[in-house]
Amino acid sequence: MEGKQEKQQERAMDVSLKDLSKKLEEFAKARDWEQYHSPRNLLLAMVGEVGELSEIFMWRGEVAKGLPNWEESDKEHLGEELSDVLLYLIRLSDMCGIDLGDAAIKKIIKNAIKYPAKSE
Amino acid sequence: MEGKQEKQQERAMDVSLKDLSKKLEEFAKARDWEQYHSPRNLLLAMVGEVGELSEIFMWRGEVAKGLPNWEESDKEHLGEELSDVLLYLIRLSDMCGIDLGDAAIKKIIKNAIKYPAKSE
Amino acid sequence: MEGKQEKQQERAMDVSLKDLSKKLEEFAKARDWEQYHSPRNLLLAMVGEVGELSEIFMWRGEVAKGLPNWEESDKEHLGEELSDVLLYLIRLSDMCGIDLGDAAIKKIIKNAIKYPAKSE
Amino acid sequence: MEGKQEKQQERAMDVSLKDLSKKLEEFAKARDWEQYHSPRNLLLAMVGEVGELSEIFMWRGEVAKGLPNWEESDKEHLGEELSDVLLYLIRLSDMCGIDLGDAAIKKIIKNAIKYPAKSE
Repeated sequence: MEGKQEKQQERAMDVSLKDLSKKLEEFAKARDWEQYHSPRNLLLAMVGEVGELSEIFMWRGEVAKGLPNWEESDKEHLGEELSDVLLYLIRLSDMCGIDLGDAAIKKIIKNAIKYPAKSE
Repeated sequence: MEGKQEKQQERAMDVSLKDLSKKLEEFAKARDWEQYHSPRNLLLAMVGEVGELSEIFMWRGEVAKGLPNWEESDKEHLGEELSDVLLYLIRLSDMCGIDLGDAAIKKIIKNAIKYPAKSE
Repeated sequence: MEGKQEKQQERAMDVSLKDLSKKLEEFAKARDWEQYHSPRNLLLAMVGEVGELSEIFMWRGEVAKGLPNWEESDKEHLGEELSDVLLYLIRLSDMCGIDLGDAAIKKIIKNAIKYPAKSE
Repeated sequence: MEGKQEKQQERAMDVSLKDLSKKLEEFAKARDWEQYHSPRNLLLAMVGEVGELSEIFMWRGEVAKGLPNWEESDKEHLGEELSDVLLYLIRLSDMCGIDLGDAAIKKIIKNAIKYPAKSE
């Protein structure tokens, strides 16, 4: 029993882009929302969420790592806005036929070549 | 040998948010860039990438799903800009102490309650 | 009397950037909000408004010039969001010590050199 | 002669939204670019410029008012990016049939009612 719980928690903690992609597809299909999910519609929806994310940070001046002194409710709100950006980004990638996880791995490799590490 | 290759490919195809998070942390550490990764710096860097992503779509008028008629090089460029947004989003979440995968799963559940499916 | 009213209306129709700048400064002073108006705070506030502007356009697919078939209330809402972006942009410029009108004129001249007109 | 020059300079310093609007219209017409200036194209172009503006501020941490210690070339670059946002914003407003100056004045009045000044 305990082992199963741990495993579920572990899986929940290591969400894959494909997991989210599948959930978003099911979500859109079940609501007949696929018709609205054109690339530019999704891009503008994502820009909207980037705006909401920015509003959380706008009047705070510099913010320290780990958000010390933030209310728990503000952190929860932040988690939601970060998620909204992510979910539209994944959906946009899918509607463009781009494998986002694959592209991200390639970009990290490209960046590592572009900006060699100091010790290398 | 073949089995191992397939496994690697399979893993590459199902990238997790935690995988990317770890890679980004190592990347920043190896370059001594952690000092620049304050939440608002990363947020503005992400807005910069959202701008570059938007520039790909700006003069095209409406774009069809799957990007028919796009040049392969444009699709590759798009994959890179989508990735850049994703990578800063993940890094921003990490620097805020937010578990993005966990938050995203919770947000999908919240959305499912807010917008019930038609058949339910 | 009539002449004066017309003149005021005419002037109201030809609002200058400096007019708006002065009004925004008075507005901030009267509310003791100048303390919040650091460049990056204002930039993020502007990104927030760009998000709200994008939300007006997000699920509409392509939109025709002049917004035929838009409800009057949607147009009014659009005017407000366009204004919000403008007002933060002006305030940001002022807090950076940049003369936005002057910079804009210079940029148009620079663009005219970069992109020569066909007939030239 | 001198008086005229001074007057021109003074006018240049108090640029109106309508002045810029006219220049942008002429600019687009002379290059046959009106065909590209649909509302959503212009909106995405503006988001692109907001991204470039954000990139100027991204790795700097908090920035003081008036930009002390900034290189002159960085300030000039900033003026150009602020202008780019402004010019697309004006053009977007025009293509939507919105009088931006008029809308901005109305929004300031609305804000003054929403947020009464302390002394009032």
